[in-house]
Amino acid sequence: MASPRPTSELPDDSATDRARRPGGRSAAVRRRVLDAALAQLVQHGYDSLSIDVVAERSGVHRTTVYRRWRDVGGLLADVLHEASVDAWRPPDTGSLEGDLVEVNQEVHGALTGDPVTVALIAASFRSGQAATALRAFWTDRYDRCTDIVRRAVDRGEIPAGIDARRLLIAATAPLYHELVLLRSAPDPRLPEQVARSAATAARAGAYG
Amino acid sequence: MASPRPTSELPDDSATDRARRPGGRSAAVRRRVLDAALAQLVQHGYDSLSIDVVAERSGVHRTTVYRRWRDVGGLLADVLHEASVDAWRPPDTGSLEGDLVEVNQEVHGALTGDPVTVALIAASFRSGQAATALRAFWTDRYDRCTDIVRRAVDRGEIPAGIDARRLLIAATAPLYHELVLLRSAPDPRLPEQVARSAATAARAGAYG
Repeated sequence: MASPRPTSELPDDSATDRARRPGGRSAAVRRRVLDAALAQLVQHGYDSLSIDVVAERSGVHRTTVYRRWRDVGGLLADVLHEASVDAWRPPDTGSLEGDLVEVNQEVHGALTGDPVTVALIAASFRSGQAATALRAFWTDRYDRCTDIVRRAVDRGEIPAGIDARRLLIAATAPLYHELVLLRSAPDPRLPEQVARSAATAARAGAYG
Repeated sequence: MASPRPTSELPDDSATDRARRPGGRSAAVRRRVLDAALAQLVQHGYDSLSIDVVAERSGVHRTTVYRRWRDVGGLLADVLHEASVDAWRPPDTGSLEGDLVEVNQEVHGALTGDPVTVALIAASFRSGQAATALRAFWTDRYDRCTDIVRRAVDRGEIPAGIDARRLLIAATAPLYHELVLLRSAPDPRLPEQVARSAATAARAGAYG
């Protein structure tokens, strides 16, 4: 759910790209550039990022990188845009609590085991374009997760009329709060605790 | 609850200070320097902060500022430390829900109406010292808020054995998540909605 890490199962957009830009960039070039930008961000931090550094690291010509991405904000926005077009689907374990626990285990893993997510969150405080793209990435993830809530209503687990977004935010926000803002140590019990509390609240009529 | 803004009701620590550092800094000097650091951060951002700029802005000699605070991290840590030693007490409205709503109204106000809090959160992604100090500030605030939970247990509103911190995080985290990470527009209904959901969950036995 939470990790905006590009995957290799992304759709190949080279055809669209070529139609849009005659003689334009291939998906392989895009992949190299975005991988280089992300690796640079994670290894050396936001301040080290520049078109020049990413061009050199990716082996793609500076002019090409500049023309397509313009600046660091453009690179990070495209990293997040690329991560948004994957085939991720929310878990379907057969219960609201089970689904929320699995989502939270993904969030917890992304925030504790993968430097990409935390680096992109930090970058969102430096670049307005990255902030907007991260917001869009999360909005899309929460939208996909509404299936979890719809199925729980269909099964009669929780009342109809629940605000899916409010429930999903309640079920995930404490993880981000503890791990990103409060910088608490990772706690393997946290995903389940937080998910179970949100499910209990939903069954009791919260988020209505 | 949420705003680490220094207030003028801070205890005067000049006596302690003089005892610790013969001929040392007065509370007035500290106030001028920390006010200058905070104003510079809010108006011109983290990258503009330096000992030199803060010294000039405060009218305090560069050597004094350097000797006492060392660097930007030291300045921000002291801003947050100073904010932590105020007399803030959690609301006592007579009900769990009422108390949590008031806390959340403070958080919402700090995150939407006061640039200080958001600037310090952003700075915490740049400076490890600021991050540690912000964590300490919030830990102290959540500790003070455990009174809210204790009183609710005493009144029989919620079961004994509730984990106060988990309840308080659940009652506030969605606000931070929406306003700081998701960058959603301020929503005046949010403080009450989130507080009410957490109170419902607590009554239903969550956070136990």
